Amino acid sequence: MQTRVGVSQLLRPRSVAIVGASAAPHKAGGRRWLSAISEPGHPRLFPVTRSGDSLNGYRTYRSLAHLPEPVDLAVIMVPADAVQDAVADCARLGVPVVVVVSAGFAERGAEGAALEAALAARLRATGGRLLGPNSAGLYSAAGGLNLLGWRVPKGPIGLVTQSGNVALTFTRHARAKRSGFSAILALGNAADLTLSELVEVLIEDAATRSVLVYCEGFAQGDGRRLIEIVRNAREKKPVVVLKAGVSEAGARAVQSHTGSLAGDDRLVDDLLAGAGILRAAETEQAFDLALALAAPKVLLGRDIAVLSDGGGHAALVADCAGRHGLTLARFSPETLARLRALLPARSGVENPVDFAGAAESDPGSVAAAITICLDDPNVRGIVLAGHFGGYHLMTEDETTRSRVAQQETDAALRIAAAARDSATLLVVHSEHAERGLATLTPLHEAEIPMFAGLESAARAAAALALRGGALEGWKAAAFAAAGELEAGRPGGARQLTEPEARERISRAGIPVPPFRTAGSAEEARAAHATLAAPLAMKLVSATALHKSDIGGVILDVGSAEAAEAAFRRLMSVARERGIADAGVLLTPMIPAGIECLIGGAVDASFGPVVSFGAGGIWVELLADVVFRAAPVDETEARRMIAGTRVFRLLQGYRGRPPADLAALAALIAAVSRFVAETSGLIALDLNPVIVDETGAHLADVRMIVEPGALRSNAGAVRRT
Amino acid sequence: MQTRVGVSQLLRPRSVAIVGASAAPHKAGGRRWLSAISEPGHPRLFPVTRSGDSLNGYRTYRSLAHLPEPVDLAVIMVPADAVQDAVADCARLGVPVVVVVSAGFAERGAEGAALEAALAARLRATGGRLLGPNSAGLYSAAGGLNLLGWRVPKGPIGLVTQSGNVALTFTRHARAKRSGFSAILALGNAADLTLSELVEVLIEDAATRSVLVYCEGFAQGDGRRLIEIVRNAREKKPVVVLKAGVSEAGARAVQSHTGSLAGDDRLVDDLLAGAGILRAAETEQAFDLALALAAPKVLLGRDIAVLSDGGGHAALVADCAGRHGLTLARFSPETLARLRALLPARSGVENPVDFAGAAESDPGSVAAAITICLDDPNVRGIVLAGHFGGYHLMTEDETTRSRVAQQETDAALRIAAAARDSATLLVVHSEHAERGLATLTPLHEAEIPMFAGLESAARAAAALALRGGALEGWKAAAFAAAGELEAGRPGGARQLTEPEARERISRAGIPVPPFRTAGSAEEARAAHATLAAPLAMKLVSATALHKSDIGGVILDVGSAEAAEAAFRRLMSVARERGIADAGVLLTPMIPAGIECLIGGAVDASFGPVVSFGAGGIWVELLADVVFRAAPVDETEARRMIAGTRVFRLLQGYRGRPPADLAALAALIAAVSRFVAETSGLIALDLNPVIVDETGAHLADVRMIVEPGALRSNAGAVRRT
Repeated sequence: MQTRVGVSQLLRPRSVAIVGASAAPHKAGGRRWLSAISEPGHPRLFPVTRSGDSLNGYRTYRSLAHLPEPVDLAVIMVPADAVQDAVADCARLGVPVVVVVSAGFAERGAEGAALEAALAARLRATGGRLLGPNSAGLYSAAGGLNLLGWRVPKGPIGLVTQSGNVALTFTRHARAKRSGFSAILALGNAADLTLSELVEVLIEDAATRSVLVYCEGFAQGDGRRLIEIVRNAREKKPVVVLKAGVSEAGARAVQSHTGSLAGDDRLVDDLLAGAGILRAAETEQAFDLALALAAPKVLLGRDIAVLSDGGGHAALVADCAGRHGLTLARFSPETLARLRALLPARSGVENPVDFAGAAESDPGSVAAAITICLDDPNVRGIVLAGHFGGYHLMTEDETTRSRVAQQETDAALRIAAAARDSATLLVVHSEHAERGLATLTPLHEAEIPMFAGLESAARAAAALALRGGALEGWKAAAFAAAGELEAGRPGGARQLTEPEARERISRAGIPVPPFRTAGSAEEARAAHATLAAPLAMKLVSATALHKSDIGGVILDVGSAEAAEAAFRRLMSVARERGIADAGVLLTPMIPAGIECLIGGAVDASFGPVVSFGAGGIWVELLADVVFRAAPVDETEARRMIAGTRVFRLLQGYRGRPPADLAALAALIAAVSRFVAETSGLIALDLNPVIVDETGAHLADVRMIVEPGALRSNAGAVRRT
Repeated sequence: MQTRVGVSQLLRPRSVAIVGASAAPHKAGGRRWLSAISEPGHPRLFPVTRSGDSLNGYRTYRSLAHLPEPVDLAVIMVPADAVQDAVADCARLGVPVVVVVSAGFAERGAEGAALEAALAARLRATGGRLLGPNSAGLYSAAGGLNLLGWRVPKGPIGLVTQSGNVALTFTRHARAKRSGFSAILALGNAADLTLSELVEVLIEDAATRSVLVYCEGFAQGDGRRLIEIVRNAREKKPVVVLKAGVSEAGARAVQSHTGSLAGDDRLVDDLLAGAGILRAAETEQAFDLALALAAPKVLLGRDIAVLSDGGGHAALVADCAGRHGLTLARFSPETLARLRALLPARSGVENPVDFAGAAESDPGSVAAAITICLDDPNVRGIVLAGHFGGYHLMTEDETTRSRVAQQETDAALRIAAAARDSATLLVVHSEHAERGLATLTPLHEAEIPMFAGLESAARAAAALALRGGALEGWKAAAFAAAGELEAGRPGGARQLTEPEARERISRAGIPVPPFRTAGSAEEARAAHATLAAPLAMKLVSATALHKSDIGGVILDVGSAEAAEAAFRRLMSVARERGIADAGVLLTPMIPAGIECLIGGAVDASFGPVVSFGAGGIWVELLADVVFRAAPVDETEARRMIAGTRVFRLLQGYRGRPPADLAALAALIAAVSRFVAETSGLIALDLNPVIVDETGAHLADVRMIVEPGALRSNAGAVRRT
């Protein structure tokens, strides 16, 4: 049994042992010891080292066994070969959480992996948990705990990271943007505590307002746990994920870094989006989104006002916001009249508002214009872009400069007060946002998201719209599910014949069109009599997977004679190909409709997943597939359908009637339940499913199962 | 006739009149006067103003007529109503270039547009040219000319901008990245000098090493001129374009800013890419690409080595590089052996190289590792990522700090020397790149592209690979050409009937399958006798455009009787719909194949364009279309085909033979010539073109022409 680690143990330990603390400031142990004792309000710290009796005025201890009191947390920074003894001491003392910074474990190979597994097991046996090994350490603002070795600015963002260097990059951004961290937890090799567990700790941490994750892959089942944790806590904490390993080169780099496979990136993309997790493409974007989401307000709608010092900035902000689904609000007549009264004739008052020099000569007009827009019920959010906060820097005359600076500070105070009193979102772009100007302090203090990048501000507004529930999903990428099915087939796995697969899913309540199997021409004639012609006839064999590639499918079989002839032709194909186990499946032709695909698979990180998209030969070309964690209900299935491009065809296209979306959604939901509930299933592929106004009709089924799973003789084909 | 403006007049005027110069530093005229006199090596400056006899020690002049010598350039910053007189003075004096900073023209409406057109005409009449009005001014490093009103850092980038504020944003990035500008030209309303003309000036300017463009749209025909200018100069100067107006909100903002339509963005995307122009999505990316492209080296290949202080940075760099088409090089055995000998056991020596702490304790090892990788013929480029340059900041001990700083400086000098002696590209990411550290100065001086953003460094390498000719084209987006055809139809334009269109393109040498037209059942029977059945029969009418929507197409017509019956059915459809001008076209059925589309159109900014992509009902769903400026030759047509997703089907798919790509390319090239050479053409749409192993067979043609164009009675349909 694993012991659950909570906020109190990991982020607010009362006393901490630091094993391998050192006075050498350029070493890992020395840097971290220094950052630990420098952190204001730090817990009781006990350096464990064999060199000297004291360290920076702290009494040192030769081993954990000599400590004067039990500690809540121990950090181990000794060389790899000494880690085992230190961990054994922790286990004996019942230390609840042990952070191993030392490297030289799974990242070195199988032997190291066995070593770290043993460390984790040793601790768990006495109720302890392990963070690491190869963890860069941890930081907790509320706990006064800094075991990272660098200074961390305080703030609302909780970070879980698989890389210490990436945490340093985020720290640089935090400093520049005058934000910071509630906590930083470096996952390391995750021999015990997993990414999802650390995210859970941050979600429960009161000081953390948004969770930022950098990762390179998910451990077995941990992606699924992450999704479930975030989903259950969706209303409470926003989560932003930056995940490497998207491209082939990236996946190779990830593999060489952590030894883990990056996983199918498009699947990750969809499943994270499905759980309401925002995924960022780049490092600074990830930080900016976490910063925006840590702010107290969201965007309740899609309509924004853009206010700027000039058309170029406005165009770039509107452009980026538009690419992420936002629109420019139509101002009410009253707003237009008030803006016209406020601003000189040269200013543009239609949205986007263009101050055209009016703001730099009178910064107060920015506050007034924002107040006017806040009053407009058509405006759900405002992005201010340009030079606000730095207008005073445009002159080199000291008197003018200090007068304008005062006007800007006054305006910032008015803006902060107005924004605080309104439900409307305000996001600020200022060219001067990262210069630490006092004129912008009131905006920082009012927790108004502020960025030096035009697109950062626009993207923040869009992310807050998503968070606000207004956007119907971050654009989800997709992949070729059919290829997946082929490639993902592990050794020993078994593909059911089509009759077996049809029989199996039919018993599970999934509607399957009538079909028969035949082992002789006579049986084919008999089957023809019981089915509504014209028929499709297919060669059935466990060894001939791509029926259509070898002439193993005959369509539009009308008469009984034609059925006999078709049977013979299929058998001669089988003989030519040396297929010994051939039989024939007969089923009524399904009238032409829109070819879709419904898939199911069991992913190592994410567990059972269901997919829907364009089917037939378009699968690989369109890559028009949406994934969800299975099971889904029919409402969620509808959302999946709406997330594809083939949805446009399904809604009725050039005079065709709309397809039966209810039947299609029900089928997706049924397949998702089957995938979630069937043990031993590896992959299921209904492709094509022919969809038209009469329903969703399955035309072909492939199912791959683990060896020994789903054995059933029902529907098996007689050998010829 | 327009006079061509050259580098000497615009960027290196010997004497400049500044009309509206002022002592008020917070006003447009005051700021620009100050920046002009503060610029080192400025030309002779003549302030023209009515207040006072001197300004900052310069003698002032009451009007242009009073100047003591002819000037090469005049800048006008007086209020809008005084501009006309000043421009008239310039025309009288024959000033070659006049920059009008004053606003209040086309951006205010039709009256302003007429005013500025008159200004331009006035100047052109005496051989002068106009930049602006509503231009933010201009800057030329070589000319010592700063009429922008802010300080500009010198450097290799030439900027053409439609917005002064965006130029300010770029200036901020230039300062942070220790780069700068050779010239900044603010386009303003472009009443005379156009964007393409300014780009041409910069391409010809020896001090400009890369050209950066911010624009919101292209004037009539100017997109085409830009493409031609850049294409002809492709080997000489790289061009990066940031264009707003991509999203609907962005397009609205652009329209309100410059009054111009943003144009079809996907077409712009493809045509710029086709001319070798890099298009950036965001502001900082645009600057970073221009900075990278200004460096002396390119990436000749796709295989890079990534060297980093830790796996996280390496993974993110490799990931982004991989997304842009780069791959991780496989190190030679010698490289691996040398790296193993150089670095401690804990370091990773497979690509990506992970110093894992070795570099911070011995910065010289970074130089050594780079030298080793430079020697590897498998490595075409190197991206160094991490903390190089700032290792010394990791300690607070002053002695250690200055020792490590010296080691870093030495390493930087070695890196710079090694990179200088090698054809291999080096790009550096450093967390400290924007801190102005002396340790990094040798890299700056060696013109090694250096970035604080991980993805910036990766993207720079990818851009330099594109520039190096190795990448086969920046991913081009596409759009629904069919919808375009409908929407783009101006008033008075005329859609030819299908027989007219077939006849017209056939006469131009485009292969058209045999067809006949019939005005009676008897004619239908006669036509049937001359064509190879089965036939397709289509209603022909100038008023019924969507034949398939109204039951106006009958397929698989076998016998002569069936042809008569089909004729009668089509006529009854025509009667039901009140179509008075109906006739029928008969043509042999084309066997099933891959449905493609070839389109042609004449774009306002870009002139004749040709498109190719997936056809049939997939046009709007797949949005799988590639555009090129017409005409294209067959080699370029092949590249267009290869740029689509339908290309995968055309290459042979699941046992189908490969399609006849030579025939398809020839057809695309023929259509492109027709589009380029046919005056009065608005749009041409061959959709579908059925492509299989026997050739590319046109199945439907639509052509829209200007009123009066292409009148021809051949192939016209008799009225029933």
